[in-house]
Amino acid sequence: MARSNRTQNRSFVRTVLTTPAAEQRDGNSAKKLDTAVGLRGMQAPDVWVPDNEDGTAPALRAEGLQNLVDVIAADGADFPGEIHPRIPWHRDAPETRDSGYHHLRELADPENGAIDHIDGFVIPEVGAIDDWNKAAELLSLVEAEYELGAGRLSMSVVVESSQAEQAITDLQEELPKPTNTLERLYMLVVGGADYTKDMGAITPTGSLPEWDALQHSVARGASLAGALGIGGAYLATTDIDGYRDRITANQATGLLGIWALTPTQVTEANRETLPPASGHWRIETPESDVALRSADDTQVYEGNYFGLEEQGDSYVFAAGAEGQRLTGAELRAELQKVVSYVPSLADIVDSIEAFEQERDAGRGANTVTRSARVRIDDVEVDIELTRMWDEAVYQTRMTPVRLFQDVYQNRPDQHDELAEMYGESVIQRANAIGT
Amino acid sequence: MARSNRTQNRSFVRTVLTTPAAEQRDGNSAKKLDTAVGLRGMQAPDVWVPDNEDGTAPALRAEGLQNLVDVIAADGADFPGEIHPRIPWHRDAPETRDSGYHHLRELADPENGAIDHIDGFVIPEVGAIDDWNKAAELLSLVEAEYELGAGRLSMSVVVESSQAEQAITDLQEELPKPTNTLERLYMLVVGGADYTKDMGAITPTGSLPEWDALQHSVARGASLAGALGIGGAYLATTDIDGYRDRITANQATGLLGIWALTPTQVTEANRETLPPASGHWRIETPESDVALRSADDTQVYEGNYFGLEEQGDSYVFAAGAEGQRLTGAELRAELQKVVSYVPSLADIVDSIEAFEQERDAGRGANTVTRSARVRIDDVEVDIELTRMWDEAVYQTRMTPVRLFQDVYQNRPDQHDELAEMYGESVIQRANAIGT
Amino acid sequence: MARSNRTQNRSFVRTVLTTPAAEQRDGNSAKKLDTAVGLRGMQAPDVWVPDNEDGTAPALRAEGLQNLVDVIAADGADFPGEIHPRIPWHRDAPETRDSGYHHLRELADPENGAIDHIDGFVIPEVGAIDDWNKAAELLSLVEAEYELGAGRLSMSVVVESSQAEQAITDLQEELPKPTNTLERLYMLVVGGADYTKDMGAITPTGSLPEWDALQHSVARGASLAGALGIGGAYLATTDIDGYRDRITANQATGLLGIWALTPTQVTEANRETLPPASGHWRIETPESDVALRSADDTQVYEGNYFGLEEQGDSYVFAAGAEGQRLTGAELRAELQKVVSYVPSLADIVDSIEAFEQERDAGRGANTVTRSARVRIDDVEVDIELTRMWDEAVYQTRMTPVRLFQDVYQNRPDQHDELAEMYGESVIQRANAIGT
Repeated sequence: MARSNRTQNRSFVRTVLTTPAAEQRDGNSAKKLDTAVGLRGMQAPDVWVPDNEDGTAPALRAEGLQNLVDVIAADGADFPGEIHPRIPWHRDAPETRDSGYHHLRELADPENGAIDHIDGFVIPEVGAIDDWNKAAELLSLVEAEYELGAGRLSMSVVVESSQAEQAITDLQEELPKPTNTLERLYMLVVGGADYTKDMGAITPTGSLPEWDALQHSVARGASLAGALGIGGAYLATTDIDGYRDRITANQATGLLGIWALTPTQVTEANRETLPPASGHWRIETPESDVALRSADDTQVYEGNYFGLEEQGDSYVFAAGAEGQRLTGAELRAELQKVVSYVPSLADIVDSIEAFEQERDAGRGANTVTRSARVRIDDVEVDIELTRMWDEAVYQTRMTPVRLFQDVYQNRPDQHDELAEMYGESVIQRANAIGT
Repeated sequence: MARSNRTQNRSFVRTVLTTPAAEQRDGNSAKKLDTAVGLRGMQAPDVWVPDNEDGTAPALRAEGLQNLVDVIAADGADFPGEIHPRIPWHRDAPETRDSGYHHLRELADPENGAIDHIDGFVIPEVGAIDDWNKAAELLSLVEAEYELGAGRLSMSVVVESSQAEQAITDLQEELPKPTNTLERLYMLVVGGADYTKDMGAITPTGSLPEWDALQHSVARGASLAGALGIGGAYLATTDIDGYRDRITANQATGLLGIWALTPTQVTEANRETLPPASGHWRIETPESDVALRSADDTQVYEGNYFGLEEQGDSYVFAAGAEGQRLTGAELRAELQKVVSYVPSLADIVDSIEAFEQERDAGRGANTVTRSARVRIDDVEVDIELTRMWDEAVYQTRMTPVRLFQDVYQNRPDQHDELAEMYGESVIQRANAIGT
Repeated sequence: MARSNRTQNRSFVRTVLTTPAAEQRDGNSAKKLDTAVGLRGMQAPDVWVPDNEDGTAPALRAEGLQNLVDVIAADGADFPGEIHPRIPWHRDAPETRDSGYHHLRELADPENGAIDHIDGFVIPEVGAIDDWNKAAELLSLVEAEYELGAGRLSMSVVVESSQAEQAITDLQEELPKPTNTLERLYMLVVGGADYTKDMGAITPTGSLPEWDALQHSVARGASLAGALGIGGAYLATTDIDGYRDRITANQATGLLGIWALTPTQVTEANRETLPPASGHWRIETPESDVALRSADDTQVYEGNYFGLEEQGDSYVFAAGAEGQRLTGAELRAELQKVVSYVPSLADIVDSIEAFEQERDAGRGANTVTRSARVRIDDVEVDIELTRMWDEAVYQTRMTPVRLFQDVYQNRPDQHDELAEMYGESVIQRANAIGT
């Protein structure tokens, strides 16, 4: 998408699709780029990263650069998301950084026709904060050389070394300095594979460690820098359930967007990062959260882990191998610990509208109750979930709504699909709150 | 409690009760403050935080401030814990900080009669370390204006932003500077809800993420600054089991105290943070730790997860769905992995006295053994748990004792209840060791 | 081992055995040192730490120092690993640091005959980075006094305080300064017990918390400093399974080596840190990973958690209490999520050789597939595990090979045992790749 359409980059990014700039396999090296640039609607990512680094063999980098220029110049104008090419870079190799500078100049040269459609660049393998500044400076030089305007090009980095993780703690001190241009920082991306190499970690199967601490560092750095935290690639591209679980886990750390390797992952993540279209009740077992089936206003548990039997005026409640005899009140208390509700966008909007009314009436802290009839083994129990809402809780519940609002504003090509998911009425109400 | 009774704040704080300074609901806005200031014994927290920030609607802040002054002036002298009001503050809003300064001056003005009973203040929503220093400076100004004495007012902060989390890493360098007064830092409190907002995190149900990394940051900062780490609020106020589990989890990170929203939470936490009055054996299943029932010197397992059968001179030991045939020695080894002992205060005192004797006799590292007869499905097995004790282990085991000693010294209003829990003899021995 | 045999310390250390320098128990205080210095082959650690700190009672430190000098001088030349004595040190106690300096001078004095066999020293209880520099400076003074050559003595630290954890974040800025000698940093060791004390943490049973964040800090610091991350002591010395699990968990964080308290732990860790001699398939249950038994090219599941039944052209697949009806394709997808392969050293070498060939042919990213026939309850299913290999994945898979290569080069006394484990052919191929 032509960046000149907007005055600033987005506040939220759900999906970042990477596509190799060149590959030998089929004789037609630009093919994957052609496919990617043609994506539209829920199939198109918020950010596209045509990649001339790790996805492309070193011998094909010259060809890859030409492909980048050609494809972006030809079709970038109509791409509905942003375009941020990934260029070669390495904290330890000046020749690689020099190649990166060559990429920047080729892609930014107005005569080549691509730069009008490029929003920024992704810099991999950054090191300490000084290394981030080297990349930012080359972007400044390119902006000056081609008179693009200072700050026109955003910079995103892949955090995939202990040095880069450390650099995150320097951001707060470094950002305000007038001698750098780090305010162009846009996305901080988790780079699990290279980080595993840099940390020298080993797992029995060769799978990558989870790197929870790195995830938190990147999310924290994004919050500090006013940038966007993006979760790393999910290599098992056919495991959609696993990808969904990863998205949920990422979002709980503040990494609202995720890297995608395939259009299927993009479509999945574009939807999964947003609130669901319909809410549902669920129950937590030690192994997973199980959705309850809604039938006639009753939420039915259909698994075998929990069991329930009424015996006179008490109950026998089984969880796995263990059972316990409970009064009705005790049973309700037990269920209220494991049953929860996953609200839809409409539910979230309802709650927020209600809180805003209470707050305007001078009540700063409110109790919100949601009730359900739960059925286990044909025994029905009425439960109530109570939550305290204050200003802080309200703000946390606005985050998914703000994400939705940002998507709606920036992706008109998805309006039809969003309307089909949520309905026009919910969309209008969601766009009206929290402003 | 009148701070003038003591020369310094406490080394341990178990419980921090927060109470809204004003609320509209019942027409009598000081009522909750009146109830809270009247708490005594195990119902009274170590620190009371009458709150004119998030718990109070913005429109009621003026009324809330007046309530704070009135209630503390009238009844603060007899309150058995410390009093640390929470005032409005925000790193990004000078008008909010100005309101905070107004609060400080009103509450510190000796003519208003409250300051004699106030130990310090809680500053929410702090940002980078410079922002902490702004708050500390206003405390200095107030101390000067009313001639309270430099350093008379302690400062506690709620860590609820990525900036504040980052500030923790600056504490070591900042604390010794003569140009600030950060030595008045008293409590570092985890602020999960606002932190969730600041990190932009989303969960499916709207529950707050666990934020393990933040917990560790706060605990580490408390250790570095010689301050007290306090776990955040537990919003499900009716879920006492969950609150206990949270306390246990917090203490394992070094956050020995916990925020409380209700007097019930206070009573629970005042006891649960201390060593238990009686020890017990327990066995670990994948889902939870199950207490064994003690009967005739035998520890009886009454669950269904584990099963045990003697067959000739070997055993079939079942764990969940899987069983294995074991020799007696193998069975003992398996059980010794999952059975553990939760010592009482008396048990801890026994162990420490024994180690101190050994150490004085020139033995720096000792093996401590505790044995039990465990019964599973009517089969009895004798096991022995062996642990290495050296100086480092000894020091870790002194921590709960030092916590007890601090409580005993500072909370005479709890002496009767402590004597009822532990017995006078154990209390005397616990007060005598490690000195 | 005489350090003069090598020009630099090792790039990998699997095992660090600590042995008390003196103890009262048996009247012969050097006995444990004598046993340790006599270890050879897989029983000998990569690094031996004769310890005159926490393992030795304070009253025996003088005797301990004499034992260190005597045993190292007499038998250090023939010890096959490195020797790094641990000396008294404490960030808060100048008298302890003075005692440490006395230790350094005694051990480094060529007239005492030990220094030729000493590679460096382990400094416990370090504090902020300035404290690390104090220790490094005393090593410089000793090197100067005895004309050992600047940088001759490496320095390893035990990270066991919040101050030391904080110091790790200063390493990047501190290391390049010409006014210190931190380039002598060799091992960063996790010190869980003293850290627990320093953090003031409490657990119900008195066991040590896991301290995941500290583990990550130490691993990250090791990566930043080009040093070696070493996991902490495992106190339950008789629980070998637990020790193996700890090693696996440590390695996944980048802590490739581990502290050992007994020769049994050393032998275990010397093998367990290396890739296995034979690969195997395994299946993941919620509680653990279960190895499949290989029979006639079929991988047989022999547990009870999973169950499988063929019904016409569909399957009923049970996991714990829950069963689901699946098509053949769905069943394969489910199994491919939980079945994985643990490759042997030979398998890893195969994969790496194959990737190197593909890369040289201009293919930067490749798909690697491994297939198996899995049998559950007599039903057989063919599955395929697919993984993306690119340069980053390749580098992560080289880590265990580089570890092996380092061991092979530095521990000729283990060549026979390595040949017995892996076979000569695999050893030759493993030594030839990645160079």
